Amino acid sequence: MLRASLAAATAVLFVTSAVVSPAQADPVSHFTLPNGLEAVVIEDHRAPVVVQMVWYKAGAADEMRGKSGIAHYLEHLMFKGTDTMAAGELSKTVAANGGSDNAFTSYDYTAYYQRIAADRLPLIMKMEADRMRHLKISPDDWKTERDVILAERNQRTDSDPGALFGEQARAAQYLNSPYGTPVIGWRQEMEALTRDDALAWYHRFYAPNNAVLVVAGDVTEDEVKTLAEEYYGPLEPSADIPPRMRPQEPPQRAERRLVYRDDRVAQPYLSRTYLATERNPGDQKTAAALTILAELLGGNAQTSVLSRKLVFDKGDAIYASAGYDGMSIDKTTFSIGVMPAADVSLPEAETALDAALAEFLKTGIDPAQFERIRTQIRAGEIYEQDDTMALAQRYGEALASGFSVEDVQGWPDALMSVTADDVMAAARDLLNPDDSVTGYVERGANAPPPPAGAAPEMPAMGAEVTQ
Amino acid sequence: MLRASLAAATAVLFVTSAVVSPAQADPVSHFTLPNGLEAVVIEDHRAPVVVQMVWYKAGAADEMRGKSGIAHYLEHLMFKGTDTMAAGELSKTVAANGGSDNAFTSYDYTAYYQRIAADRLPLIMKMEADRMRHLKISPDDWKTERDVILAERNQRTDSDPGALFGEQARAAQYLNSPYGTPVIGWRQEMEALTRDDALAWYHRFYAPNNAVLVVAGDVTEDEVKTLAEEYYGPLEPSADIPPRMRPQEPPQRAERRLVYRDDRVAQPYLSRTYLATERNPGDQKTAAALTILAELLGGNAQTSVLSRKLVFDKGDAIYASAGYDGMSIDKTTFSIGVMPAADVSLPEAETALDAALAEFLKTGIDPAQFERIRTQIRAGEIYEQDDTMALAQRYGEALASGFSVEDVQGWPDALMSVTADDVMAAARDLLNPDDSVTGYVERGANAPPPPAGAAPEMPAMGAEVTQ
Repeated sequence: MLRASLAAATAVLFVTSAVVSPAQADPVSHFTLPNGLEAVVIEDHRAPVVVQMVWYKAGAADEMRGKSGIAHYLEHLMFKGTDTMAAGELSKTVAANGGSDNAFTSYDYTAYYQRIAADRLPLIMKMEADRMRHLKISPDDWKTERDVILAERNQRTDSDPGALFGEQARAAQYLNSPYGTPVIGWRQEMEALTRDDALAWYHRFYAPNNAVLVVAGDVTEDEVKTLAEEYYGPLEPSADIPPRMRPQEPPQRAERRLVYRDDRVAQPYLSRTYLATERNPGDQKTAAALTILAELLGGNAQTSVLSRKLVFDKGDAIYASAGYDGMSIDKTTFSIGVMPAADVSLPEAETALDAALAEFLKTGIDPAQFERIRTQIRAGEIYEQDDTMALAQRYGEALASGFSVEDVQGWPDALMSVTADDVMAAARDLLNPDDSVTGYVERGANAPPPPAGAAPEMPAMGAEVTQ
Repeated sequence: MLRASLAAATAVLFVTSAVVSPAQADPVSHFTLPNGLEAVVIEDHRAPVVVQMVWYKAGAADEMRGKSGIAHYLEHLMFKGTDTMAAGELSKTVAANGGSDNAFTSYDYTAYYQRIAADRLPLIMKMEADRMRHLKISPDDWKTERDVILAERNQRTDSDPGALFGEQARAAQYLNSPYGTPVIGWRQEMEALTRDDALAWYHRFYAPNNAVLVVAGDVTEDEVKTLAEEYYGPLEPSADIPPRMRPQEPPQRAERRLVYRDDRVAQPYLSRTYLATERNPGDQKTAAALTILAELLGGNAQTSVLSRKLVFDKGDAIYASAGYDGMSIDKTTFSIGVMPAADVSLPEAETALDAALAEFLKTGIDPAQFERIRTQIRAGEIYEQDDTMALAQRYGEALASGFSVEDVQGWPDALMSVTADDVMAAARDLLNPDDSVTGYVERGANAPPPPAGAAPEMPAMGAEVTQ
């Protein structure tokens, strides 16, 4: 899942202050430069560090047919230098100044960031602005970097049965939307990507009027404005940013099922996804209800509906979860995963899952659980207000996906105003078999016996983020 | 299926001579004009009629993402006139001269044809050449015609459960190839097609160096050459015909299953398709073996392997069939259909089908049946040599799909040189669950009781042709 992946990335990349102080009244400000660059500033003076993120409104779902992987490939090539920077110089300079940097690509955006001592902000702004419009891809670099992304595919997808299954399941979930194509790309198309493809992508999408700058940390709005005007202000906007008109899903009319068999599967599991309404600018109500539905059904390994019914009541499963991330330009997925107990087959686990869902639709929501989840969500939102780096991610992702600052700020209220009836209505609308993909991930016939006490590992389906 | 559809179209459109005379030694000649237009002439002097077909190397699989249906939409707009012809004038003129005309669109080509008295060939060549480069789409016509294709979708797809299921199954069969998109288009994309989209398509693909002219009937090669030079010769070739580089399928790694429920289904049935090797220029051997495999398994309702095992031996099914059409630029499908007997469920029918296939793989081919099929195929090829209009279709389709005249002429030999071992090797390679899509087409919960003695109707999967 996107949320989980981002959270994990955050945990690795940003060591947030252990001292939790009260959130500031309104630490977030927002402005737009004359050349179209939107900027968000999140002030946090608890530690003398700053994070700069630049989010481009270009992701894998904007790719042309047959060029899958190009968004992520270009992300790699963005480290290859400019007229004034050698290949690798940006990262080397950040590291030499005690900072760290990286980048990631998803369906709806590509983002670059650095974390560094606050007084080095001019340095990283200068370099990030430079590569926004002046990237150079030398004739030597592009093939090497293509080998790198192919190796990344090997490591992260081809050697991981859960990832391979996930690709096949996404392709079955989406009949027409480019969300059915993996962010990393299909191997045979990655192998054919060229320097020209990368440059065409860069010139099409990389411009100040197609980007969002987020600066978070020990800075003020005025400082950021002055620096942004100095470094990003002179960059020419592009006159040819294409509108984001994505191919939409036709009606889904037949429930789909997949059986994936792989000798490397340690523990069989069941995956179910439903095509789901996403958050929309100015209209986040259904997505808020689905967010709470996911928490209710499978958010907590002890108390969620599916855990109680499948794991604790009858012992059909050793693990059950649900997930939903509404931050998406087009229709997203709501996912459910069940790992059956040792003596329970996948079809038996599925029957138990369907019975649990039917019972939930019939009996509705336990008010005590609903209140508990509201409290958790409220606490989570308050906690996140205090987590500057999570806020930076949240604003950057939302603005790069076409949402406004008001949408982001209205999300906690949207969540808190959801009623139990809203959740049940969203659930009835969601759980339509015709919109679903059910996958059995099975051990192949030649699989070695599973190691005793193997830890369950069940990748969640959802938007993919590739670093 | 493509073959069935084309044959049916031929039967309706061309009333071939009832007098069967021996085929001429080599009635087919082939030349190319300096502007790149390839031409095939098939002489047949038994009746004073001629057919002109123009095949463009542009079909639905060449469409941009999000513009599904544009190839077929342009086909309709091609009847809208030029500088010198009013909208509808071409068809009206053909009819006034006692002829008929039509057009069709598939994944790999779009074709236009007229059948008329042989002395009117100059008239139809003049008009066909005119619209190859001088189409006009008036600001009034394009919206009306878009309503026409939407009505066609209503009639041929949305009101036909088998067609709706077929769309969902194709989308599940192809993870990446544009063959997963319906030729007619997804409704929401058809609704958004514009005159600009149509003109862009026209200018991209409609040129003599992207077309194949086939003239068949009471003409000589010299006559056709002279007329083609006169009418088509002056047309400018295009310098920008894009190469036909289609997105390819990644490895398919999980067997897929669909359940389609519709109250309008009269009789439930089971559909199974496998991704299959297609005919390739200069390499038709595997496709020839698969063609014979389809005949063996399900080509004949009395004697085929599946009919014998499923219908006659055990009575599990009332009908079983198999189909394969290798004439395809990219990977095609091999399809199997089973209509269970009244007291047999779809899962039971599937179990019986899988048992029949497993038994076939184990026991191999009955030599007597193999000989019978070879004899049938030989007879069919001889018969087709005598059917000028079928030959015209065959050459036009093949050349528009990148094949040579030699490939077409070598196909009967390719079929006859297939051995039983070749067929079994092709079958073993084909019947891989990971490459398969199995569909259950079921009556919806609210379906009225089926009419007594309802005639079985089971649409075969395969390439779609839209007139």
